[in-house]
Amino acid sequence: MEYADKVAAVERYVEAFDKQDMAIIRDIYAEDAIVEDPVGSDKHVGIEAVCAFYEGALGSGAKLVLSGPVRSAANTAAFPFQVKMGDMSIDIIDIFEFNEAGKVVSMKAYWGPENM
Amino acid sequence: MEYADKVAAVERYVEAFDKQDMAIIRDIYAEDAIVEDPVGSDKHVGIEAVCAFYEGALGSGAKLVLSGPVRSAANTAAFPFQVKMGDMSIDIIDIFEFNEAGKVVSMKAYWGPENM
Repeated sequence: MEYADKVAAVERYVEAFDKQDMAIIRDIYAEDAIVEDPVGSDKHVGIEAVCAFYEGALGSGAKLVLSGPVRSAANTAAFPFQVKMGDMSIDIIDIFEFNEAGKVVSMKAYWGPENM
Repeated sequence: MEYADKVAAVERYVEAFDKQDMAIIRDIYAEDAIVEDPVGSDKHVGIEAVCAFYEGALGSGAKLVLSGPVRSAANTAAFPFQVKMGDMSIDIIDIFEFNEAGKVVSMKAYWGPENM
């Protein structure tokens, strides 16, 4: 998987929030995807649980703004961003892991109350 | 472990490079620490292997400049930074995982050739 493809996946992720478009989320993630957001919380396992999680997140009106370049090592993409929701802003780092088909099989989000 | 303690560990990590001070590295990491830098490469397992790795890294004269806030979830700290070495700069995201004693047991560095 090329670096440009990983960056494109991240950009589509941002676009999913911009457009509140669940079809993009469903396309980015693998069937067996696991989402842990934030790290340490209960995991969303499998595409249906993942989509249920994002229906809430996208429905909240939250928007993502990248705050630095996408870092790529092996089958991963790591990227810093802010979630903006009204007057609120949260600093987050996400790690995507991709499978051989180029779908995200694991997403871990690093943030806590001190990042709000 | 408080957020401030995690930030302090990250700041001491930056200081270790500034001062080329291996004593700080040895103090930050746990005996059973594992370092994977970049993710996907051979891991440095145990404090002696970790210190051998950093002797090279610190000896190179590389300096770290944080490029965003430290994100903290559960027992982790995630932080974006640049490594500066002469005219070269690399964008990196590191993930620290801490043990109950507040020592780093796992470090994973996310970067690739496209981040240079």
